[in-house]
Amino acid sequence: MPTLKLTIEYDGARFVGWQVQPNGPSVQQALVDAIEKLCGERLRVTGAGRTDAGVHARGQVVSISPVKELPLKAWTAGLNALLPETVACVSAETAPEGFDARRWARGKRYVYTLKLSPVRSPLWSARAWELRRQVDVAAMQQALGHFIGTHDFSSLRAADCPAKTTVRTMSRLSIDADARADGVWHVSVEATAFLKHMVRNLVGTLVDVGIGKRTPESMAALLAARDRTLAGPTAPPHALVFDEVFYLPGNADPYANPGALDEDDADA
Amino acid sequence: MPTLKLTIEYDGARFVGWQVQPNGPSVQQALVDAIEKLCGERLRVTGAGRTDAGVHARGQVVSISPVKELPLKAWTAGLNALLPETVACVSAETAPEGFDARRWARGKRYVYTLKLSPVRSPLWSARAWELRRQVDVAAMQQALGHFIGTHDFSSLRAADCPAKTTVRTMSRLSIDADARADGVWHVSVEATAFLKHMVRNLVGTLVDVGIGKRTPESMAALLAARDRTLAGPTAPPHALVFDEVFYLPGNADPYANPGALDEDDADA
Repeated sequence: MPTLKLTIEYDGARFVGWQVQPNGPSVQQALVDAIEKLCGERLRVTGAGRTDAGVHARGQVVSISPVKELPLKAWTAGLNALLPETVACVSAETAPEGFDARRWARGKRYVYTLKLSPVRSPLWSARAWELRRQVDVAAMQQALGHFIGTHDFSSLRAADCPAKTTVRTMSRLSIDADARADGVWHVSVEATAFLKHMVRNLVGTLVDVGIGKRTPESMAALLAARDRTLAGPTAPPHALVFDEVFYLPGNADPYANPGALDEDDADA
Repeated sequence: MPTLKLTIEYDGARFVGWQVQPNGPSVQQALVDAIEKLCGERLRVTGAGRTDAGVHARGQVVSISPVKELPLKAWTAGLNALLPETVACVSAETAPEGFDARRWARGKRYVYTLKLSPVRSPLWSARAWELRRQVDVAAMQQALGHFIGTHDFSSLRAADCPAKTTVRTMSRLSIDADARADGVWHVSVEATAFLKHMVRNLVGTLVDVGIGKRTPESMAALLAARDRTLAGPTAPPHALVFDEVFYLPGNADPYANPGALDEDDADA
C-alpha cells in the first residue's frame, strides 16, 4: 500500500473552503470524489492546510494511501481529467510510509496580495484586497520585525481557533512590490504552522498600521497582550494564496528526529 | 472645451473587444454610455489601441472633448461609479488641445503571459496561455533579436489588417520569468505601433520556436518573406494585456515636431 504526496492548486472562489462541510462544495470533497472515480477507493484525504472559503492554493499538499497501485503519471493525468476546472493536481510523488501531509509539514508559506490605488482594479479585484486610500507601506514594513521569530500569536487567532498551543515560529515575513503592476504588493509569510485566520488577522493589523490607525511600535504590545480583540480586522479571503508547504528532505518523518516540533495547526 | 486623457483598465473576457460592434458589448460602448450618463453628452471616444475580443488592458488611453467642464476627480469617481465592474477609469488628466489618444501615441507596450507546465493551472487559466508540453525558452529568447528594430512586419499581420503601411519599429522585446509563479513567463513587446494581431502572431511564432517547429535563425527569413501564411498560429487573446501607451512629455503634439512619424495603427 503506497503512500502518495499530491500537490494541489485551486481557485478557492467557489468553494466553502478546503474541508468537507455540509453547506457547499469543498476542495477536499472534490478530491475524494475524483480519487474514488480513478481508483475505486473512497480514501481519507489529508491536506497540509485547512484553507477557508475563498482562499486559493498554489501548493496545497495532500497525503493518501490507496490500496491500488497506479503509475504516478496516471494519478496526475487521471485526477486532472476528473477534477473540476478550478482544482488541479500539479504533481504526484511516492512518499515514505506513514507520510502525513499535515503532521509531517515543517513549515508553510502563504502570500497575501494588496492593491493600493484610489480607484478599483478590474484586473486585480478577484485576487487582491483593494485599499482605495493612502497606505504607508514603509510603516507596514517597520511593523514586520515584531512578528518574526517565536511568539505566542493568540492576538491573531480567530475566536473559534481549535489549536491547543498558540506559540508559533515565523521565519519570514515580507512585503514586496509586484514587479509588473503598479500599486500591487505581496505580503509573504512563512511559519512552522498557523493559527486559524492568523495570516488574515496579521494582514488586517498591518493594514491598520499602513492607514495610521496603529503605530509599528504598537505591535510588540499587541502580541504581548495575547488578546484577539486588540488586533485589526480579518482581511478578506479572496486575496490569500496557500503557496507552499515545506517538508524534510525526501519527505522524511520529522518525528524520527528527537528535536522535531509538533505544533498543532489550525490554519490561515 | 477641454480635451481629456483618460487611462482605462479592463478585463476583456466578456467584451467583443475595444471597438463598438453590433454583436455584443464593447469597452468603447461602455465608456460612451458612462460618459453620457455623467455629463449628458454622447461623445466620440478615441482609444489608443483597438484591442480584440478577450484582450485585457491595464493602460488603454482614450481622448474625449466634452463641452461640459467637470473637476478631474469627478471624471474618475463618476465614471467608476457608472462603468461596469470589468472596466475602470484609472486616471483623468487635461491634455493639450487636439490631443488624440491614437494618433499622438509614440509607442505602446503589450504583455503576453505563458504558463509552461504539463498540467493545467486553475490560478492562471484565465490570464495565461497554457502550453502543456516541453518548451525551450532559451530558444525563444534567441529568436527575439530578429524582431527588434525597424522591419516590415507583414508576416505577422492578420489577413484582414487594415493598415496601409507595414513597417514598424520594435524597441523592446523580452521574455522574463514571473518572480512568484513557477513556469509563468511574460513576453513584453514595445513598438511605435502594431499591425492587427501582430503581438499574438509574434507569440504564436515564438512558441513554434519553443516547441522546436522552427529555429531561432529562421525568423530572419520569415520577416523577409512578408507572407502571413509562413508565420505561426495566432496566440489566444485571453493572455494578452495592453499595458501602456507612451506619449511625448506633457502629452505634447508629436506632429508639431517635423521628425515625427505617423504610423497607422491597426493593433494587436
